[in-house]
Amino acid sequence: MDREYPFLRACRREPVSRVPVWLMRQAGRYMPEYRALREKHTILELCRTPELAAEVTLQPIDRFDLDAAIIFADILLPLEPLGVGFHFEKGEGPVIERPVRTAADVKALQKFDPTVGLDYVLEAIKIVRSKLEGRAPLIGFAGAPFTLASYMIEGGGSKNYLEMKSFMYRQPDAWHELMRRVREMTRDYLAAQIEAGAQAVQMFDSWVGCLSPEDYREYVLPHSAWVFEGLASYDVPRIHFGTNTATLLEAMKEVDSEVIGVDWRLPIDVARRIIGSDFAVQGNLDPALLMAPPELLVKRVGEILAAADAKNGYIFNLGHGVLPPTPMESVDAVIETVHGW
Amino acid sequence: MDREYPFLRACRREPVSRVPVWLMRQAGRYMPEYRALREKHTILELCRTPELAAEVTLQPIDRFDLDAAIIFADILLPLEPLGVGFHFEKGEGPVIERPVRTAADVKALQKFDPTVGLDYVLEAIKIVRSKLEGRAPLIGFAGAPFTLASYMIEGGGSKNYLEMKSFMYRQPDAWHELMRRVREMTRDYLAAQIEAGAQAVQMFDSWVGCLSPEDYREYVLPHSAWVFEGLASYDVPRIHFGTNTATLLEAMKEVDSEVIGVDWRLPIDVARRIIGSDFAVQGNLDPALLMAPPELLVKRVGEILAAADAKNGYIFNLGHGVLPPTPMESVDAVIETVHGW
Repeated sequence: MDREYPFLRACRREPVSRVPVWLMRQAGRYMPEYRALREKHTILELCRTPELAAEVTLQPIDRFDLDAAIIFADILLPLEPLGVGFHFEKGEGPVIERPVRTAADVKALQKFDPTVGLDYVLEAIKIVRSKLEGRAPLIGFAGAPFTLASYMIEGGGSKNYLEMKSFMYRQPDAWHELMRRVREMTRDYLAAQIEAGAQAVQMFDSWVGCLSPEDYREYVLPHSAWVFEGLASYDVPRIHFGTNTATLLEAMKEVDSEVIGVDWRLPIDVARRIIGSDFAVQGNLDPALLMAPPELLVKRVGEILAAADAKNGYIFNLGHGVLPPTPMESVDAVIETVHGW
Repeated sequence: MDREYPFLRACRREPVSRVPVWLMRQAGRYMPEYRALREKHTILELCRTPELAAEVTLQPIDRFDLDAAIIFADILLPLEPLGVGFHFEKGEGPVIERPVRTAADVKALQKFDPTVGLDYVLEAIKIVRSKLEGRAPLIGFAGAPFTLASYMIEGGGSKNYLEMKSFMYRQPDAWHELMRRVREMTRDYLAAQIEAGAQAVQMFDSWVGCLSPEDYREYVLPHSAWVFEGLASYDVPRIHFGTNTATLLEAMKEVDSEVIGVDWRLPIDVARRIIGSDFAVQGNLDPALLMAPPELLVKRVGEILAAADAKNGYIFNLGHGVLPPTPMESVDAVIETVHGW
């Protein structure tokens, strides 16, 4: 059954009946039904209430002809059971309550069983699977160890990643210990999502593009690889996504995964050439193009499809998440153009 | 005389007696003598008072064995005579007072003569030249039209560049008109700096890395090229710098300049290979590495020198500006390692 979904077939580089498309952050503020829920609940309430998380996950599936659902959650959710804590401040983004700055902070991180500490995500996955009724496969996800560790050290968003890089360079042992703690949690969390019903998993390394290739290889790659290796025994596609990774792709190929996701900073044909034929590729429209007039948007989607070798191991997506002011018509136009290919 | 400076010789790909090094934002908060001045004056007071701007420019030259000085100024200074206005808000970065959002806003931009509207920068250049007494050549600079236009539209710093990209995609005629206005100002401003005594000029396209190569070619490249072409008749090296440009370098080669500056996201040998032998190259240590222990810092500087073909048309620099918490010893270590090469 799973074998018939174009999305899962494309992940496995099998022939597809149509080019699959889903959009990162396809459930979000651009949808009126999401905004209606947000008037009554905070983001964290939505994430932590399985029925609500399931409802939000399904909103874009009910409205658009998407080829995959992705569970509604936040990459920072594990910070609570890790003992680091976080909340969202109005207009400020996430604030980490007890940032990790020392080897002692790393040691103090709590180990937890994701079926207990993040049970609400797993419960939401089960509800979504039952409500999807085969309309689309469901993707589970987690932040990559690097991006999560960076948030934990920086204490929130960052411009120069100065705290994180200082920690990495000055306390390499503590850094690698932190990465080992986070990677173990991430592997267990993604495995639990698969066991709860996720039919594919994506690891988001949203901040990794701030690193040189040398630093990436030394401080990040072994830990990302460890997570993906730990999931290899599941028969479930693994998507490795980062933004701003043009110069990291050669290294990312050394990580075992089925799909590599790329942003808009490099042309999709160049990305495919670098990545080679052992991976499916996902991407890579600039989310800001959904603000463009329809002619320009459709033209750019068509150019990507033409350059992507779109029927061979390719999944259409944006290069990053849907932006809040995105018009719904743009989402429709993207999906129609992809499916019409 | 100018012909003997290693920095200017490297810009022209002539043989050098030593590998030249200077650091973007080498005058700044990491220096106690700068912080002492900032206790008495705002950044804008320092910029707008020629004697103070000259003093700040010379602070790193007096303390370190640097191969070039760069005039102390801010890329946003032209926004005042353009009629857009800006100020710095504590901890917030620049705030643009009357952001450009419509074609009418573009038309309302004021034309000005930089020898009047930005006379204080030119005056500072003259003072610095007289005080340098041949110790080092002086670099003038300006923001690139794209980065300046983006600030004017966004109204300040930005995460997704959503206002700018929406403007670009939805109002392409107004966008190109804005770029024409800004490029003309930029050419005149840089020409005036050269005439005041700048012995090289650098154009900073700090935000350009948020664009796809296709957008760069369509919305940016012709305007950057126009500025540099307008300066070709001066016998002064022109440095074209942007951050996050790994996928834009092929296009940047179509812009006439002597030097292309790159950040740390791609290895320097890869950058040189892409850029080819018609340009000198400047870069590319991650500024965060100056937070590292000396052994690691010196190792990384050495790796760059080894990979850079450092005696042939190469200038050592960081990939972006010196960060405020940088230890002075790190700056010394970098300069010593480069000169010892």
